[in-house]
Amino acid sequence: MARIRIGMIGGGQGAFIGAVHRIALRMDDRFDLVAGCFSRDPDNTRATAAELGVDPSRAYASWEEMADKEAALPADERIEVVSIVTPNHVHYGPAKRFMEKGFHVICDKPLCTTVEDAEDLARTVESTGRIFALTHNYTGYPMIRQAREMVRSGEIGDVRKVFVEYLQGWLSEPLEADGQKQAAWRTDPAQSGPVGALGDIGTHAFNLLEHVTGLRVTDLYAVLRTFVEGRRLDDDDMVLINLDNGASGTLCSSQVCFGRENDLHLRAFGTSGAISWRQEHPNSLDVTGENGAVTTLRTATGATGAASTSLTRTPSGHPEGYLEGFANIYAAFARRLRGEDDLEDAYPTVHDGVRGVRFISACLASSSAGAWTEL
Amino acid sequence: MARIRIGMIGGGQGAFIGAVHRIALRMDDRFDLVAGCFSRDPDNTRATAAELGVDPSRAYASWEEMADKEAALPADERIEVVSIVTPNHVHYGPAKRFMEKGFHVICDKPLCTTVEDAEDLARTVESTGRIFALTHNYTGYPMIRQAREMVRSGEIGDVRKVFVEYLQGWLSEPLEADGQKQAAWRTDPAQSGPVGALGDIGTHAFNLLEHVTGLRVTDLYAVLRTFVEGRRLDDDDMVLINLDNGASGTLCSSQVCFGRENDLHLRAFGTSGAISWRQEHPNSLDVTGENGAVTTLRTATGATGAASTSLTRTPSGHPEGYLEGFANIYAAFARRLRGEDDLEDAYPTVHDGVRGVRFISACLASSSAGAWTEL
Amino acid sequence: MARIRIGMIGGGQGAFIGAVHRIALRMDDRFDLVAGCFSRDPDNTRATAAELGVDPSRAYASWEEMADKEAALPADERIEVVSIVTPNHVHYGPAKRFMEKGFHVICDKPLCTTVEDAEDLARTVESTGRIFALTHNYTGYPMIRQAREMVRSGEIGDVRKVFVEYLQGWLSEPLEADGQKQAAWRTDPAQSGPVGALGDIGTHAFNLLEHVTGLRVTDLYAVLRTFVEGRRLDDDDMVLINLDNGASGTLCSSQVCFGRENDLHLRAFGTSGAISWRQEHPNSLDVTGENGAVTTLRTATGATGAASTSLTRTPSGHPEGYLEGFANIYAAFARRLRGEDDLEDAYPTVHDGVRGVRFISACLASSSAGAWTEL
Amino acid sequence: MARIRIGMIGGGQGAFIGAVHRIALRMDDRFDLVAGCFSRDPDNTRATAAELGVDPSRAYASWEEMADKEAALPADERIEVVSIVTPNHVHYGPAKRFMEKGFHVICDKPLCTTVEDAEDLARTVESTGRIFALTHNYTGYPMIRQAREMVRSGEIGDVRKVFVEYLQGWLSEPLEADGQKQAAWRTDPAQSGPVGALGDIGTHAFNLLEHVTGLRVTDLYAVLRTFVEGRRLDDDDMVLINLDNGASGTLCSSQVCFGRENDLHLRAFGTSGAISWRQEHPNSLDVTGENGAVTTLRTATGATGAASTSLTRTPSGHPEGYLEGFANIYAAFARRLRGEDDLEDAYPTVHDGVRGVRFISACLASSSAGAWTEL
Repeated sequence: MARIRIGMIGGGQGAFIGAVHRIALRMDDRFDLVAGCFSRDPDNTRATAAELGVDPSRAYASWEEMADKEAALPADERIEVVSIVTPNHVHYGPAKRFMEKGFHVICDKPLCTTVEDAEDLARTVESTGRIFALTHNYTGYPMIRQAREMVRSGEIGDVRKVFVEYLQGWLSEPLEADGQKQAAWRTDPAQSGPVGALGDIGTHAFNLLEHVTGLRVTDLYAVLRTFVEGRRLDDDDMVLINLDNGASGTLCSSQVCFGRENDLHLRAFGTSGAISWRQEHPNSLDVTGENGAVTTLRTATGATGAASTSLTRTPSGHPEGYLEGFANIYAAFARRLRGEDDLEDAYPTVHDGVRGVRFISACLASSSAGAWTEL
Repeated sequence: MARIRIGMIGGGQGAFIGAVHRIALRMDDRFDLVAGCFSRDPDNTRATAAELGVDPSRAYASWEEMADKEAALPADERIEVVSIVTPNHVHYGPAKRFMEKGFHVICDKPLCTTVEDAEDLARTVESTGRIFALTHNYTGYPMIRQAREMVRSGEIGDVRKVFVEYLQGWLSEPLEADGQKQAAWRTDPAQSGPVGALGDIGTHAFNLLEHVTGLRVTDLYAVLRTFVEGRRLDDDDMVLINLDNGASGTLCSSQVCFGRENDLHLRAFGTSGAISWRQEHPNSLDVTGENGAVTTLRTATGATGAASTSLTRTPSGHPEGYLEGFANIYAAFARRLRGEDDLEDAYPTVHDGVRGVRFISACLASSSAGAWTEL
Repeated sequence: MARIRIGMIGGGQGAFIGAVHRIALRMDDRFDLVAGCFSRDPDNTRATAAELGVDPSRAYASWEEMADKEAALPADERIEVVSIVTPNHVHYGPAKRFMEKGFHVICDKPLCTTVEDAEDLARTVESTGRIFALTHNYTGYPMIRQAREMVRSGEIGDVRKVFVEYLQGWLSEPLEADGQKQAAWRTDPAQSGPVGALGDIGTHAFNLLEHVTGLRVTDLYAVLRTFVEGRRLDDDDMVLINLDNGASGTLCSSQVCFGRENDLHLRAFGTSGAISWRQEHPNSLDVTGENGAVTTLRTATGATGAASTSLTRTPSGHPEGYLEGFANIYAAFARRLRGEDDLEDAYPTVHDGVRGVRFISACLASSSAGAWTEL
Repeated sequence: MARIRIGMIGGGQGAFIGAVHRIALRMDDRFDLVAGCFSRDPDNTRATAAELGVDPSRAYASWEEMADKEAALPADERIEVVSIVTPNHVHYGPAKRFMEKGFHVICDKPLCTTVEDAEDLARTVESTGRIFALTHNYTGYPMIRQAREMVRSGEIGDVRKVFVEYLQGWLSEPLEADGQKQAAWRTDPAQSGPVGALGDIGTHAFNLLEHVTGLRVTDLYAVLRTFVEGRRLDDDDMVLINLDNGASGTLCSSQVCFGRENDLHLRAFGTSGAISWRQEHPNSLDVTGENGAVTTLRTATGATGAASTSLTRTPSGHPEGYLEGFANIYAAFARRLRGEDDLEDAYPTVHDGVRGVRFISACLASSSAGAWTEL
């Protein structure tokens, strides 16, 4: 089947997540990267295009120009999808414009920086009929799919308690003061939006929690805090949550937990079982059975279901990781675009994005008011 | 050196923690159990005494009788110490009386059920000059001593974040409805006091946190909750805390986390390192160094300090556990009583007990008011 | 029930294993230590007796004297059992003599230093009718009992492969050259017998393998080696083994594996499952089920059988360790002596000891000849 | 820089390792797959070519035809490299021919099925000057590079003991009897050569051992065995080894260890430290330091060296796995071909392949003769 023509906004030289998206789209050979506006700096865009083998004529100076010119190309030449991998403040604009111009969208998270924009994007998806995927990439891991199916089908009974943590340590020092690029934009309200760690990683934790359990956070009590002097956004968040089935729990996201790498850890305890999954060891899922013993399920084995196995590329014991999980979002998007059968909820949508932005908004309100806040 | 004569209140047939105390006092051969009021039921007391080889004449019908009669014995016959291993509501009375009668006291936790009683016991310790130890037994683990020394000496820098969890699952079902003895008294306000899980295990978590870090909780926001229908006390607690150096964190204690056994887990993240310790694997301490790598320190090795090694009985790799940690509290008590040199803060005191009762009180107040509460 | 009167040979000040035996015999309060010949040095014996509260009149200058004088005491005063905790070359003599004098025996491993002596002891046990236990203490762990029952009842199918390792690192340096006592006797052929590491730890590995699987090693190919210059006995052993059901495997014991503490690790793979147990984490047993997933069974939970739970003193999640496992051998011995019901094969016997000495002998022969050798 | 034009032999629909090679070559965007003979079945080759976007005119009926016709194409059109991913018996022929025709070669392991052929290939590499890489892909893991540099630079002292295991369980049943394709050719002497498990996985273990330690196996004692009835090649191997610095150890490869997935585990103990690495958790390397404590080094952290970090694509805590390790071999090959600077020994060569075939040959000889055999 013909590869899907894709363009990219962001991801120029020096960026991190753009390169990840590109590996993800190459992994399963379903996309051709044929256009891009990789940076606000035209030199960077040109150099990046050259490096990536993108035709110079389709290396654009601005995303606005890219939208216009790609739309003007013949249908069998123009891109079909745009991937938006810019800092948060440049999600809403291009996402809306490209959908309106007839393109499907893959967008990095968080969806955008205000609830109003988020809802507007949701309406745009609906009105244009475009396919929209948000790269909450951790949902692309096979064992997250396994956990989701087990929890939703009642294998641990009714969920009572959830604990979700996303702990990093790389911002323990004021790296932004030294101009480290990844730190700089994430701690700059103009680029990151009203929150720091909460948007960068807290929204992943929130998304994973709702994705796996199928439950919704109804209200929360949040304490957002900044530990590193001079930093302008939160670098540590503690959130107490209630869920719509009566469960409760904690959600902690922090980028000042010294030494922690990318420690996203989800636990859910039900009335007759429990699950635990840790991103740094993604091919295992610990499941507590009715007798209280913990069984470690592993990807691509006889002990896991067809859905999780459909997300693997290697036999059991051949570890897959972050890039493969990310690629699974792209692959699901490709299948959806080509009309192939797929898993239910195969990729995060604009609605997940709206939830995430509302979560941020509720946390900000709660933390300011010192009060439980509905979401 | 002559063994210390000790008596016991509580710990009759069918009890749990009394048997643990007795193994602990036997372990290092420094005590002789010579008297007891093991139960409210005189038959149980008699049978227990017979089983333990306690002279029937010193198997008492009530702790009041025991206090009087032991005090009347010759100095070289009467007990020197009493160990109180009853449910919480029978701590204050005997502890106070025995101190007044001239006996030293080892008391199970929590110290008692009200702040007033706790402060009264602290005054009694001071006025009588008696030795008083509270069996927050987890402080008896060698690697807790190692963690304490490392954190207090600045090896992880300034503490920023603490996470302490104490998760069990055994009360996921209403065992008390079936008369299971351990469940019954712990969920009965008349015996357990105003809290359930928070007093039973939350106070251990709180004590460990302050013991290891040397920091004090200044204020907290608590949500106490009961999941199991019909249960009269909390079985799940979530507490946000601030510490007196500006650090913050979470403390969670729950007895409805399905499948969890006795999962007390302490993590502290500082500005230049971190520690993590888990009770179910007590002979290891994970220490994050300045380069971010985690080193696992193990008991009785060349990598650990003299203080922790002084609390071990076996060479490295020969695991010690709960009973040995418990015995370390008894051994420290014995050394103190016999005037031998010892570690600083070798065992938890009445002041730790007062802190624990204040912690309970603050959590109750916070949870009722939905407000941060000073401790 | 009255405590059992016990005496001890060896275990004076400065010894290691004697203190372990004493904690083990105190743990469950079934023994009174009332006599001993703790050292070849009478001063040490006297001092040790004083420290332990043993009557000076029963602190003997030689084990021969002890045998004679204890036998001459009234039946209700004299010891019932002797515990032999000396270096290997002083096992055979006292074991035989005390049995002949009417005493039961608990003896440290290996049983003795020659096959002839071992068989003589087995005959003596039979002819005298005495109870004889060998402290292959690792069989006292609850999860070893669990593993044994599962493997023997066919839960992993027919055993095909076994891997047993016992790795330590403490003899990586020539500690014996500096007079370190534990190193000195273990590397001295006059005290340790014809092998070093193989007798000290390899026999434990061998015993555990046969104990758990119920299979017998039929023949083996061994390479015994000494890495540390000047050492007179093997400090590293590699053994290929065949078992009587057609299974095969490896047994490695080494004391020069730098950093390893006391890493006894047993794995058995069958036709439909597998088990793995590691001494440094003794309360867990990993069991591979038919679907290939690994379930971690834990002591004293609903997931383990009655036999293993009968060997625990604490609820699940309250770790027990080396001393408790050791105490289980003493407790089983006490139950046997008092005629109480017990598990099948509740403690290692003289026959296990004979197997161990034959194993040593076969390894020596194989290693010399470079040939497979029957056992 | 222009992508490298590559062709593939093998890897048609239904194959496993071919798809892995293709993901590996796509990962870093340095290759274009433009030709292939994907199967002996021309229909499969055509269908595979269509699926992969390979021009039908360059989908060849035989590798001989492919060699001839590609060589006849203009220099800027013809492939530069061929990747050989066929069963073992079809390595030697195409490898030799393509080199002679002027192409570089990437070849799956083992190199071939006889020592004579292996040596002939080594001579061909030398005489033609072609670049030749063997996909001992496990050497592509960052932490293997880290281990290699640490061991070779003396950080664990002189190596004394090595233990390398490669355990799988998927051939516990006679899958080949049911025609399972992966099992069928691996157990067929005509396709796999004279050994089964030893060639399939034992050679990986052997290669990793020599790669990391820089030591050479001098002689060995092997027991090759077949557990599953009717199977024609070994499915279980135990090998005792001596190394050229005086170290010794064990190498075990088995495909009948029930439940094991792909458990390649390397341990090396030196005179002052040790390392342990496990393929199923490839982003961690456990290093025992001089004080005996184990530190877990992690990819892409400040605790690891530049060489290992150069092999990562993601920040620390974003796990990479099997496919990324495999891709590192392709990337190193590409850098070599394009004359870019690189690590020393950046990919396995024909000489590693010769060692592997000699290892197989020595094991066969030893196992038949029951004698130590030089390698």
